[in-house]
Amino acid sequence: MAGNSFGTLFRLTSFGESHGEALGGIIDGCPPNILLDFEAIQHELDRRRPGQSAIVTQRKEGDKVRFLSGILNGKTTGTPIGFIIENENQHSADYAHIAEIYRPSHADYVYQQKYGIRDVRGGGRSSARETVSRVVAGAIAKQVLKGIQINAYVSSVGELSLTKPYTDLDLAIAETNAVRCPDPILAEQMEAYIKAIRKEGDTVGGVVSCVVKGVPIGWGEPVFDKLHAQLGKAMLSINAVKGFEYGSGFAGTTMRGSQHNDLFNPDGSTQTNYSGGIQGGISNGMDIYFRVAFKPVATLMQEQPALDSKGNIVTMQGKGRHDPCVVPRAVPIVEAMTAMVLLDFCLLNKKH
Amino acid sequence: MAGNSFGTLFRLTSFGESHGEALGGIIDGCPPNILLDFEAIQHELDRRRPGQSAIVTQRKEGDKVRFLSGILNGKTTGTPIGFIIENENQHSADYAHIAEIYRPSHADYVYQQKYGIRDVRGGGRSSARETVSRVVAGAIAKQVLKGIQINAYVSSVGELSLTKPYTDLDLAIAETNAVRCPDPILAEQMEAYIKAIRKEGDTVGGVVSCVVKGVPIGWGEPVFDKLHAQLGKAMLSINAVKGFEYGSGFAGTTMRGSQHNDLFNPDGSTQTNYSGGIQGGISNGMDIYFRVAFKPVATLMQEQPALDSKGNIVTMQGKGRHDPCVVPRAVPIVEAMTAMVLLDFCLLNKKH
Amino acid sequence: MAGNSFGTLFRLTSFGESHGEALGGIIDGCPPNILLDFEAIQHELDRRRPGQSAIVTQRKEGDKVRFLSGILNGKTTGTPIGFIIENENQHSADYAHIAEIYRPSHADYVYQQKYGIRDVRGGGRSSARETVSRVVAGAIAKQVLKGIQINAYVSSVGELSLTKPYTDLDLAIAETNAVRCPDPILAEQMEAYIKAIRKEGDTVGGVVSCVVKGVPIGWGEPVFDKLHAQLGKAMLSINAVKGFEYGSGFAGTTMRGSQHNDLFNPDGSTQTNYSGGIQGGISNGMDIYFRVAFKPVATLMQEQPALDSKGNIVTMQGKGRHDPCVVPRAVPIVEAMTAMVLLDFCLLNKKH
Amino acid sequence: MAGNSFGTLFRLTSFGESHGEALGGIIDGCPPNILLDFEAIQHELDRRRPGQSAIVTQRKEGDKVRFLSGILNGKTTGTPIGFIIENENQHSADYAHIAEIYRPSHADYVYQQKYGIRDVRGGGRSSARETVSRVVAGAIAKQVLKGIQINAYVSSVGELSLTKPYTDLDLAIAETNAVRCPDPILAEQMEAYIKAIRKEGDTVGGVVSCVVKGVPIGWGEPVFDKLHAQLGKAMLSINAVKGFEYGSGFAGTTMRGSQHNDLFNPDGSTQTNYSGGIQGGISNGMDIYFRVAFKPVATLMQEQPALDSKGNIVTMQGKGRHDPCVVPRAVPIVEAMTAMVLLDFCLLNKKH
Repeated sequence: MAGNSFGTLFRLTSFGESHGEALGGIIDGCPPNILLDFEAIQHELDRRRPGQSAIVTQRKEGDKVRFLSGILNGKTTGTPIGFIIENENQHSADYAHIAEIYRPSHADYVYQQKYGIRDVRGGGRSSARETVSRVVAGAIAKQVLKGIQINAYVSSVGELSLTKPYTDLDLAIAETNAVRCPDPILAEQMEAYIKAIRKEGDTVGGVVSCVVKGVPIGWGEPVFDKLHAQLGKAMLSINAVKGFEYGSGFAGTTMRGSQHNDLFNPDGSTQTNYSGGIQGGISNGMDIYFRVAFKPVATLMQEQPALDSKGNIVTMQGKGRHDPCVVPRAVPIVEAMTAMVLLDFCLLNKKH
Repeated sequence: MAGNSFGTLFRLTSFGESHGEALGGIIDGCPPNILLDFEAIQHELDRRRPGQSAIVTQRKEGDKVRFLSGILNGKTTGTPIGFIIENENQHSADYAHIAEIYRPSHADYVYQQKYGIRDVRGGGRSSARETVSRVVAGAIAKQVLKGIQINAYVSSVGELSLTKPYTDLDLAIAETNAVRCPDPILAEQMEAYIKAIRKEGDTVGGVVSCVVKGVPIGWGEPVFDKLHAQLGKAMLSINAVKGFEYGSGFAGTTMRGSQHNDLFNPDGSTQTNYSGGIQGGISNGMDIYFRVAFKPVATLMQEQPALDSKGNIVTMQGKGRHDPCVVPRAVPIVEAMTAMVLLDFCLLNKKH
Repeated sequence: MAGNSFGTLFRLTSFGESHGEALGGIIDGCPPNILLDFEAIQHELDRRRPGQSAIVTQRKEGDKVRFLSGILNGKTTGTPIGFIIENENQHSADYAHIAEIYRPSHADYVYQQKYGIRDVRGGGRSSARETVSRVVAGAIAKQVLKGIQINAYVSSVGELSLTKPYTDLDLAIAETNAVRCPDPILAEQMEAYIKAIRKEGDTVGGVVSCVVKGVPIGWGEPVFDKLHAQLGKAMLSINAVKGFEYGSGFAGTTMRGSQHNDLFNPDGSTQTNYSGGIQGGISNGMDIYFRVAFKPVATLMQEQPALDSKGNIVTMQGKGRHDPCVVPRAVPIVEAMTAMVLLDFCLLNKKH
Repeated sequence: MAGNSFGTLFRLTSFGESHGEALGGIIDGCPPNILLDFEAIQHELDRRRPGQSAIVTQRKEGDKVRFLSGILNGKTTGTPIGFIIENENQHSADYAHIAEIYRPSHADYVYQQKYGIRDVRGGGRSSARETVSRVVAGAIAKQVLKGIQINAYVSSVGELSLTKPYTDLDLAIAETNAVRCPDPILAEQMEAYIKAIRKEGDTVGGVVSCVVKGVPIGWGEPVFDKLHAQLGKAMLSINAVKGFEYGSGFAGTTMRGSQHNDLFNPDGSTQTNYSGGIQGGISNGMDIYFRVAFKPVATLMQEQPALDSKGNIVTMQGKGRHDPCVVPRAVPIVEAMTAMVLLDFCLLNKKH
């Protein structure tokens, strides 16, 4: 375990730095004979891509994926799928000003301490640009998972928060606005808010919610590899994530058991779903839903104090690309990780 | 991966059902030449043990651990440590009434669907009794981790919640009351509340917080095996857990980057610690702190409708042991999992 | 990876030292609903047991396995199967004379150097007694693998060697003599030879061959986890093994491709089987066969020079149990490891 | 586990087919701050490259490796090293004649059966061209392993075999001839023999031996991950390998224990080295040596019967590239896998 692989039977190993030559990965264990929809894969990359709207970072990247193996005439062959995304944008000079500087709440300092060396350009390996490989693997996993719908969306930006339960929302609306919030009025407010934040050179956090429909009963491997434990790890491995809850979550801690228990219907479904579609770490056939907390990203377009390698506190000039609110672009990443987790458990469950 | 192992270089594999002959595990990868304090191990088991106070389940178990290998004259030898805890309490007859019944919000139904067979006695493998093995492994991990303090405590029971930050609390107080809350006045209220819940035959959820001091810089393996991602998985693998957040957590999503960034001191420490001691998945030398949400446990001492194997909704008579609030007993389990995660990353980091 | 687990989806983790309290293991990933034949499991242990005949070590061990979990009414439940075998024979005093001595060609010296501590009694963890856990797991794997016959036998002892191909032998004969050689005349010669070696207080090596019939096409995971690569690792992990070859093996290196190629029959079977039932790491439906080389065991009943912990060469008095030729008792171990490897690939292959 | 990764802490995951766009891999866990010698890496690729001499396959490939990540100013950064080798030679048309044909003793048939689809061009993933990624990873591992010399060489081709022990040979001579045999006279005979075989359109097998000097005491993880067990798996995972033996190997099975035991010198070294530098799966500081058996490759420049997808036996016209004896080109591959295994155990051993 050196940290750059995810999954057991469907397994992504990724590589690449923010401003290196290329990023990419290897997907090992993809079932054979799946006819891939390459446009759908590119569509997921486009959803994650910088510069897609006025409220996200304006870094210019085409993010075109090139598949190198594991596919024949458009079909998976069961052999490993190698892929790369070339970095068009390698302006190393942009980062000269931070070569000897550790930015606050970035990973600069800990990488330097852990490895004794680091790629200063754009955060190197610690950059969220790494998630581009996850989106490719997740897009393929989605296509293998027939009959399962994964819908992530933005449920809060700063203090602006959806209050309705997901069952009262039309989740398809989320993709019709730049914020990816399924409530059009709230979406407008969020967009305006993010634009204001951007003007100040500041950033703000938010929450991505995700709903999964159609997962059959039986996925998840107790006791340590519970379905929600692996989902939680997947989400917490995404840059800027500070929390994960599923089903009733933190709010459920204030409930009584007599309220919280999901009573059965005769067909095995339940009348309520505080459990979030998972019992004892195993899917129970009900909707799986969870929430992922994203902190405000640390790169500001404001002056702020930083530490230099000689132990001086210096003032850092805000510069480079600005992503005022990361959550809209996090939506496809949350979906991608969800798809990978589910497919892995799907394959593991086939052994029974 | 079949779900019953946790960790990479320090690895626990556990076995055992609630009412089987014995539970136990194998710890593989424990460093050699560690002089074990067996009383300290038993002390951790006693903290988790049923029947330790008036507010927890009254099941009678001595929970004495017997070590079978890997230890010579009290010292670890570097070979696997096998251990068992015999179940004194195997009243199988107690469970005859639920043999064909799926209790609401228990794992009965999904185990039956996934495996086609299940041990109905006390939830079998899905019982929280399984965590006894985790406590043994965690107690050993704690002893290997010199200079690191792990303090978990109850920060909320139902709506009763600590409001002060942990830095304003004397965490040592937690162990002086049955609820394990470091605020003595709140602890009394919580205890009274749990007793009231118990009388109603009901249950309530709560939150366990955990603070870790003394972790050096550099533990954690980006990008998928971030320190907090693995901590989150560890916590979410504990029975009844519905959520995990670290550092600023869900509350941090409403903050601005300009507030949330932790500015450096010249020595590399930070003035604030919204990051929760982790940057980019790697420990930064500051305190690590996190919160774990526990739902109310599903076993009630009340009548409630259940499903039987023929698809009928039947009324189930509350019976057996009652744990009105699981969080006080969860405290040592949270600490145990934390210790295991930290030791694993400690060993992984030695390779550099 | 700390070395004490084997397998991926069907996974044995073992523990225990030669003269510790108990040995045992956890089998994780055994498919559910398998009705176990416990007598068959004990029969495999008896085949491996010391003292079973005049030509093996006379250590007295009942080797009774006690299952602690994962089994309900005789059927596997899909949860981990914990088991222990108590050591009846813990005469630690027998080993006082070697506490500070490193025996030649034993692991004493390297364990001391690697771990800085070691259990001197009977070789501790490095003893072949550890294989008792493998035999339990293999016996269960055999029962899960329906329709597959695994037959190992002794094909050479010292210079005495079977010359006929296995297809000309009745492998069932092997179990009718103490040496486990399917040629009754050669078996008698081998037995006499081993008895003579025993009288001299010496030991001799030999070869165990194994033939597997009934493996379907498609087991094995290229490229690193080829079926024969994993079989080879399994065999080489058994104490005293120095070599592994399958199909044409080392002899095949002198052949021409035009001789060695296995021409197809119209049904996909082949006319010859130099490939040993495996192509490109994947089973092809033909018999799998391989040979495993065992060196003479190092414990002699003769005086020999040894090293003490102060760097002196001292004369060691032969003492303790004597196993003049390990190969007859190795037969069930080879079969057990084969069964585990095959079942693991069987489960892995189900994902397609 | 899907088969395309090797190693635990130093881990190669590889991808690519013989005639796909590119091959490559990701090396995860390479220690940071290693100044890489890129010429040395390319030199290893050149040793494996087709067309390097008159006795190997004449396929034209430059085999230039392009590193995409994990390296900064020539130094490793501790992040994953992604690399690709573009296939210059993608004459898919060359393979039209075998699209529906299963060649004897190739993996065509089993891939088709296992996956239901296969890349027919040059054997696809089952081609030995895959080993190009291993050579890159091994070349890097060699550079990390300071003070360890790994020397592989050809010790037999068909019946032509080195008889002297390696200690009587100057292994450096091996690289001065096309066959890579350290005995110059035998090398000439082997070369002449291979040329004769080539003229007949036939192939022949051989043996690669390997000697490793300088491994410190203590590498290897008992009991399942013994150093020689992992070495054996590594070698058996190379295309065309049929056997592995180390130390006294198969020949040692005919010896007596009194001959075979390696008596100690006072400094802990041994007078003989039948053990092959490994005791109980752990390196003991003596030379590690082993032998790897390669069958004759199956591609002949002769007509031979094959099976078509309709179940007909058809005559296949020999065509394409011809590698009359694979062992000279296997030498760098054996070294590469050895280096990877050793580095992995080196890193694992640091945890103690």
